[in-house]
Amino acid sequence: MSADTSSPQETQGRRSGGRSGRRKSMETAAADAKVTVLRQWTLPYEPIKAVPEEAIDAIHDASMRVIEEMGIKVLHDEARDLFRQAGAEVDETSQMVRMDRALLMELVSKAPSSFKLHSRNPNWTGMTGDGNILVATVGGPPNATDLDRGRRSGNMEDYENFCRLAQAYDVIHIFGQPVEPLDVPLNIRHLRMTNSVMSLTEKAPFIYSRGQAAVMDALELVRIARGVSWEQLRREPSAYTVINMNSPRQLDIPMAQGAIDMARNGQPVIVTPFTLSGAMAPVTVAGGIVQQNAEALFGIALLQIVAPGAPAVYGGFTSNVDMKTGAPAFGTPEYAQAQLVSGQLTRRYGLPFRTSNVNASNHPDTQSVYESQMSLWSTIMGGCNLLLHGAGWLEGGLSASFEKFIIDVEMLRAFEAFLNPLEVNTDTLGLEAIADVEPGGHYFGTAHTLARYDSAFYQPILSDWRNYETWRDDGSLDATQRANRIYKETLREFVPPPMDPGIREEMDAFIARRTEEGGVTVD
Amino acid sequence: MSADTSSPQETQGRRSGGRSGRRKSMETAAADAKVTVLRQWTLPYEPIKAVPEEAIDAIHDASMRVIEEMGIKVLHDEARDLFRQAGAEVDETSQMVRMDRALLMELVSKAPSSFKLHSRNPNWTGMTGDGNILVATVGGPPNATDLDRGRRSGNMEDYENFCRLAQAYDVIHIFGQPVEPLDVPLNIRHLRMTNSVMSLTEKAPFIYSRGQAAVMDALELVRIARGVSWEQLRREPSAYTVINMNSPRQLDIPMAQGAIDMARNGQPVIVTPFTLSGAMAPVTVAGGIVQQNAEALFGIALLQIVAPGAPAVYGGFTSNVDMKTGAPAFGTPEYAQAQLVSGQLTRRYGLPFRTSNVNASNHPDTQSVYESQMSLWSTIMGGCNLLLHGAGWLEGGLSASFEKFIIDVEMLRAFEAFLNPLEVNTDTLGLEAIADVEPGGHYFGTAHTLARYDSAFYQPILSDWRNYETWRDDGSLDATQRANRIYKETLREFVPPPMDPGIREEMDAFIARRTEEGGVTVD
Repeated sequence: MSADTSSPQETQGRRSGGRSGRRKSMETAAADAKVTVLRQWTLPYEPIKAVPEEAIDAIHDASMRVIEEMGIKVLHDEARDLFRQAGAEVDETSQMVRMDRALLMELVSKAPSSFKLHSRNPNWTGMTGDGNILVATVGGPPNATDLDRGRRSGNMEDYENFCRLAQAYDVIHIFGQPVEPLDVPLNIRHLRMTNSVMSLTEKAPFIYSRGQAAVMDALELVRIARGVSWEQLRREPSAYTVINMNSPRQLDIPMAQGAIDMARNGQPVIVTPFTLSGAMAPVTVAGGIVQQNAEALFGIALLQIVAPGAPAVYGGFTSNVDMKTGAPAFGTPEYAQAQLVSGQLTRRYGLPFRTSNVNASNHPDTQSVYESQMSLWSTIMGGCNLLLHGAGWLEGGLSASFEKFIIDVEMLRAFEAFLNPLEVNTDTLGLEAIADVEPGGHYFGTAHTLARYDSAFYQPILSDWRNYETWRDDGSLDATQRANRIYKETLREFVPPPMDPGIREEMDAFIARRTEEGGVTVD
Repeated sequence: MSADTSSPQETQGRRSGGRSGRRKSMETAAADAKVTVLRQWTLPYEPIKAVPEEAIDAIHDASMRVIEEMGIKVLHDEARDLFRQAGAEVDETSQMVRMDRALLMELVSKAPSSFKLHSRNPNWTGMTGDGNILVATVGGPPNATDLDRGRRSGNMEDYENFCRLAQAYDVIHIFGQPVEPLDVPLNIRHLRMTNSVMSLTEKAPFIYSRGQAAVMDALELVRIARGVSWEQLRREPSAYTVINMNSPRQLDIPMAQGAIDMARNGQPVIVTPFTLSGAMAPVTVAGGIVQQNAEALFGIALLQIVAPGAPAVYGGFTSNVDMKTGAPAFGTPEYAQAQLVSGQLTRRYGLPFRTSNVNASNHPDTQSVYESQMSLWSTIMGGCNLLLHGAGWLEGGLSASFEKFIIDVEMLRAFEAFLNPLEVNTDTLGLEAIADVEPGGHYFGTAHTLARYDSAFYQPILSDWRNYETWRDDGSLDATQRANRIYKETLREFVPPPMDPGIREEMDAFIARRTEEGGVTVD
């Protein structure tokens, strides 16, 4: 079958010959699931510029000098070979790779300025780059937390619950890896994680770069779930990864291997230097950006050597550490300015720009929100094309919070409405309505109001706009406590998305076989 | 004395001949007070445009038609006379005032695009308009609230505590009226309030338009506190008020009287239509802005008739009601878009633009912050010149919250840092520092880092960036609980600003006399 030429509903219908009771119950569930479609975010405003173009010239020039004169240490043998073959200068003793700016920029220019990220449900295929924005869940935390049970090590139950939340909310377009299921052995963890995300969601998955075998297993599961050939999968980005540069100026072996494997298979790689100013990058924001820019372009160049035209995303993560403690700080004024400058650079290079919704708070409290909002505004208005950690990130990324997930969803929903261009036309200017209402009167009953009553304004899911007395008498729940109720209710009401029974069987069989084979080798 | 030609420190020194023990204790306190200076905010970024210029043309045209064809009802007799004398068409039966756009815009053009707001301490004189921004406390709530005592009716103790907080934090440039001291009789309330703000702060005060006598009493206290003549006060804006249009299309008697009295005395008036879309304005954002624009320009025209060149500020407050309940909503996507459009209009007219840091939450919780941040980002990046309700507003303006005040101060401090232009030069680009650090190394000990160790990054007062275990073991206080501790500590450590004993005596004598006379007549 080709999931590209038929809607999931048609596919579901076509496969509905009676084969098992299990399928019947799945069909009932599918019938209950609302049909949803990715609403592609685009930025209708001019992105904010933090610095004049001459400053962008200066940052570009300085980062070119980092690559030309200082170079990047590449620990991976094949990657160094690839750079050498492409014309870079490689010192095998020091493992340093240098190249001139003409070669670097020629390689970078091969990367597409935008691409589609395909879902197993074509309704959920979306676009990143060229003004288009995709939003992902949080990715990476080793801990999960909620108000009821507190903070605990990541586990499969929490992982799957985040899958359900990701599927339930339309402002989440693609999947991160919200929490690490530490209760699943590492040799088969990638199988279990990929199975859960492909089964419980229709959002394009994140794949960890934890060795070639694990990457290929995960891609095989994505391929099966999409119901496509390897040839089609390689043509259509369907999963993505993040390659962190081991800043400063170092690309390590697992990261390089992941970059190579994903690019060879046509899957997008986000290259994100881990440039925290004052620790892994210069203490100045401008210096941090110089280093980020050099490292990100260097990583993207590698992808283009492996597979010219490989989908690539420039990752902006430059923030700073607290100089008192060395702790990373996020959602700071420096972070906001760094994102704006990164957006200016990526637009100059014609590359999709990844950034993050981040904060350093230990609790889903007001700090977590003001830091998140500084992140969201600066990244979205800075021209972000792929927002990682869109919902659920807490504690500088050490915890995934169920309540913060809901708070973030509310904020993302508000942003989606804010990104809806304001309509100004004879109808919305409302002169007739203004003439209809006497001075000091009100508009509640006018025809203009009544015609727009239902859809006039943004409707929140978390905000409580009732008056104080009503709110107090209903238990005085603050927004974080309400978020706790909302996430649990969403999980209770969750209906899994439909999946073709043949695909289900093929995925199960693959996982069973690979598990029997012992999964992947763990170092 | 002239407070304009000598610094407060000099004034303090000059007046320090021994006259009373009271003065001595004040001098000791003054010696303890840190010397602070208003750091003028300016916007280093291009303001965000919500709509193209043609849409601004269309909104302008529609609002001109509101004034030309429909008119504004003016309940105040003298105001109608003034409009008639200036050439407007006045219908005495309906009290409707209409004028053509040429006359309206000619009047509006007399308003200055920026002006200084003078403090009794020249260090705290600031500028609004032409890219300059002043930040005020919350103004207007009838209730005060904190975590310890909950919500109560406004009273003088709370009022004075907000005075102290306003004085203590440098990101508060001017004073609102944070909470109404309902325990003070209305006939002398304006005397007590103005006395407290002029004694406990050095921030230019807000004066309520509650009748001519009360306005003149308050201005007399401001004049005495500044140590200037009436002639100088009339030349130098030193206090401000807000005139709300009684939307739709109505200017009532107290508001018109306040506008006239303040303009005649050279004091700035913010003209703010109360345009909540769906209730007092059309249900569309564009329609709400059309009405806001008509009403604001109409009010500013009145000020220019009274006193050509009178300092005036265009007030943008357009938000929407929740169509389910009629409750006002703030910090919504619609609010954000309305502020951006308002900024575009005011820049076209060359008028200072007032807006607000608002939210509709009943608690200083995450909702209060994400709504506030939507307000702050859209107003500051929309080109705001005077931010009302900058700190402490809660519950749609029905409560002033001590904790929210501190949370807002933290957010304002972060914005101040964000408004500091990013420096890009050879020094900040940091190429030498990058060359200094080995691949995979760190920057903690480099010369570049050590030279900037103390001042490199924004230092929060509320955010807790310690790791989870340290935070947990220290009591797991969320940011709102920490804000509670911080405001109480700030009050404990408060040192009142110095005041010349002669001025103190003159203020006391005036208040005693006016109190003895029975204060003002209360309707």
